[in-house]
Amino acid sequence: MSTPRAAAPDLGGGAAEPEPVSVRGRELGSSTQPSHRLLAYSDALLSVIATVMILPVAHTKIHPDQKLGESVQQLLLAKIAVYLMTFLIVTVAWAAHVRLFQVIEHIDDVLALLNLVSLVRHFSLMASFPEVPFGIFLFSVCAVVIGLIQAVIVAYGFYHPHLLNQQIQVSENQNFYKRHILKIILRGPALCFLAAIFSFFFIPLSYVLLGLVIIFPHLTRFVTWCKTKIVGQRDEEEEHHSLETFTFYLSEPLSKERVEAFSDGVYAIVATLLILDICEDNVPDPREVEEKFHGSLLEALSEYGPNYLAYFGSFVTIGLLWFVHHSLFLYVTKATRLMGLLNILSLAFIGGLPLAYQLTSEFAEKSHNEIEAIQISCVITFFASIFQFAIWTTALLHERETLQPFAGYGGKEHAFMFAKLALYPCVSLGAFFLTCLLSEFSTAIFHVMQIVIPFAFLALRIFVRISSTVIKSMMSLSRWKVVLLEEEEACLSPTETLS
Amino acid sequence: MSTPRAAAPDLGGGAAEPEPVSVRGRELGSSTQPSHRLLAYSDALLSVIATVMILPVAHTKIHPDQKLGESVQQLLLAKIAVYLMTFLIVTVAWAAHVRLFQVIEHIDDVLALLNLVSLVRHFSLMASFPEVPFGIFLFSVCAVVIGLIQAVIVAYGFYHPHLLNQQIQVSENQNFYKRHILKIILRGPALCFLAAIFSFFFIPLSYVLLGLVIIFPHLTRFVTWCKTKIVGQRDEEEEHHSLETFTFYLSEPLSKERVEAFSDGVYAIVATLLILDICEDNVPDPREVEEKFHGSLLEALSEYGPNYLAYFGSFVTIGLLWFVHHSLFLYVTKATRLMGLLNILSLAFIGGLPLAYQLTSEFAEKSHNEIEAIQISCVITFFASIFQFAIWTTALLHERETLQPFAGYGGKEHAFMFAKLALYPCVSLGAFFLTCLLSEFSTAIFHVMQIVIPFAFLALRIFVRISSTVIKSMMSLSRWKVVLLEEEEACLSPTETLS
Repeated sequence: MSTPRAAAPDLGGGAAEPEPVSVRGRELGSSTQPSHRLLAYSDALLSVIATVMILPVAHTKIHPDQKLGESVQQLLLAKIAVYLMTFLIVTVAWAAHVRLFQVIEHIDDVLALLNLVSLVRHFSLMASFPEVPFGIFLFSVCAVVIGLIQAVIVAYGFYHPHLLNQQIQVSENQNFYKRHILKIILRGPALCFLAAIFSFFFIPLSYVLLGLVIIFPHLTRFVTWCKTKIVGQRDEEEEHHSLETFTFYLSEPLSKERVEAFSDGVYAIVATLLILDICEDNVPDPREVEEKFHGSLLEALSEYGPNYLAYFGSFVTIGLLWFVHHSLFLYVTKATRLMGLLNILSLAFIGGLPLAYQLTSEFAEKSHNEIEAIQISCVITFFASIFQFAIWTTALLHERETLQPFAGYGGKEHAFMFAKLALYPCVSLGAFFLTCLLSEFSTAIFHVMQIVIPFAFLALRIFVRISSTVIKSMMSLSRWKVVLLEEEEACLSPTETLS
Repeated sequence: MSTPRAAAPDLGGGAAEPEPVSVRGRELGSSTQPSHRLLAYSDALLSVIATVMILPVAHTKIHPDQKLGESVQQLLLAKIAVYLMTFLIVTVAWAAHVRLFQVIEHIDDVLALLNLVSLVRHFSLMASFPEVPFGIFLFSVCAVVIGLIQAVIVAYGFYHPHLLNQQIQVSENQNFYKRHILKIILRGPALCFLAAIFSFFFIPLSYVLLGLVIIFPHLTRFVTWCKTKIVGQRDEEEEHHSLETFTFYLSEPLSKERVEAFSDGVYAIVATLLILDICEDNVPDPREVEEKFHGSLLEALSEYGPNYLAYFGSFVTIGLLWFVHHSLFLYVTKATRLMGLLNILSLAFIGGLPLAYQLTSEFAEKSHNEIEAIQISCVITFFASIFQFAIWTTALLHERETLQPFAGYGGKEHAFMFAKLALYPCVSLGAFFLTCLLSEFSTAIFHVMQIVIPFAFLALRIFVRISSTVIKSMMSLSRWKVVLLEEEEACLSPTETLS
């Protein structure tokens, strides 16, 4: 069913042997291409589109003297809500894209171009104007157009069946599958179409409809589940024809490769946003350097010192969170839909890190909002890492299917992975409560935390080894005691039996 | 030599079978990891770092009434030169990174963390201040630190030989290899160190030294070549121990996978910069909308119409150039160093596209510089696409080693690829000369060109088919004529012989 694509990387010395091309690809003629790289590029662009929504939030100008606790906070909250919603909608579109290309396994030029067209979009209007009808209208229309292009892709794929998944290619119910997939793909755009219409009459309803796009699959799943429980039987036809993808079960497989690619994209774009922020705002203006610091760039830079520290700290945080994610997915053999969901929630908070950087670099040591800014950063880091932990927990539930054999319960690797995943939640929670207690030193605490953590990761393996040997020796000690006691008993018992 | 890594993507229906893990990986224990994803992430970050340098150039503020032809042009040229230099230096660092991880094939946690540390860098200072010593100093120091980290990675790799490439692992000359690789890796940083020292005394020399970093490998290669030609014999020791990588031959293999990943990164980050530009600058300010347009977002947007058109056009251009690149590398089986070089030159111009966008969106229809802006855009597009064409030409030189069999000379696919690669150079050149002739309609010409091209790509296959059938029929017609003539002669000749 799953034909390994011609994507085996050739990094080893680079011999001149030609890359293996799947036999089917050759049979079909050279116009059919493996879709690997196109999908990776789509993942990169979609992750950019999803994450860029944080910018209107992060760049909301707040005057340093203004308290965070007033109307600004409300505006910020509204924008964060819109960011989360657009992020989740884009990820829903991404998940649909993943499912689509699990059905269509090969591409040709037309599909590649259609796919590229479906990636041109521009959502940022809504995030800047949460209360303006036209922004919502544009967003919804965009979603409708993209849905229509995806429907065209499905139609094209079924018109050229050699592009399809093997399972569907040999099936007799191609028409049923086509209808089923089209129905699911057009469901979101239909809701968005309604939202576009209502955006001019009654905005809250539009938002409800857009929210419905996110939870609709779960809702239908829930309704079917209830029906099955109440009526006691399932739809016969659906049972027979059901695909492995497009089921919306929580255990539905999701291409692990693409989950990784999308996550990498989000981590990379967040790192990029940080680089851009530091490039744009914190490179001193040549004229200012001339006038204010008499041409001394060094002096000018020392003014930006705290910003560079905040930049460095945020960059390290992202790098390490990526490192944890990378370690985690090395152990995962199969990604399910539930793990994908948790991953997306984690990524939504990762996408919030530029906001955390803005807050810590702008407010730190300048205003009354120091503690709030640092606490928000801690909360964002905590949630980003705790959802990573949740992915691991979920994977452990079906250990045999989803994890490498050596990473299972109780092994050394399991303990090590546990420590890796638990480090960030613990530290960010600790920093949060420390800033509550020692509010004067909050900035210092935060920066020390950010800088100490990499060393903690390096020392982690040693720490885990020591603690596991300690535990083992304690276990063996207690066992030894038990043995001693037993021996004593054994020594005593004969005398007892004798006596 | 080249062990295919466990990277076969599982997109097909997603069966529950566990992903294949290389046997060696299991033998070595689970702390050793395949490096595939880490390298892809490094490629993404390095491409971001290389491309971001265009920002100080693109965001040089030029007043619409100012003529492009004066001191502004000089400043712009200096910044473009610095952009090109930093871009090329980062790509040299990237090439070193590729070579390094062709030697070190497996990673563990320590290497992963070291590699992440080596990616934290911040070069933008130099691009903003080409004439300030401290900017060059920081840049050079950054390069030195990264070189040292790479040296540590090499030392670590040779200390744990199971991480190395099979070829080196079984070799007896490990120490020689280690010295050879360290020498090559530390050469660049040594030059940067000198540049850092001279930055305070004599800036031009610093720039010469930094330029030397880029051409040094080629220079040493050239010197060795000359020596071989003059003296007539080669260094015996080198001949014996020489590795396949780190030779700096133009035919030295370069991991095709990583060339693709780096290119994808540049294309994606350029698309991102466009999205960001449109997000930052062209989303109307809520207050301005309120005051100037009486709350009508639609009216405010119509003012930004040309910008959206320019954005859409640039986005389409990048998407299609990526598409051509993607098609090209589908046919390539092995990337050589020369192809890598041409690819990097192409990418350097791709990185200039945000500048083209800025120019066309800011100047178009507003100022005297309309034609210059559009001509610069045409030139950038032309060079980006002509270097892609050069990659194809280079690949054709060693057709058997570097290309898929069906893509060779004379085939249908060859003609199609040729047409695909020739489209952009021809069109951009055409647009350039058209704007020279019809200077009044230059904006219209440019936008029409950008919008027509996607359709041209869709129609290309049909066009190639028609023209090839026309050519074939003409060929057969002429052959038919020849045959007729021959027949005539044949008919005549008996009579002739008779007469």
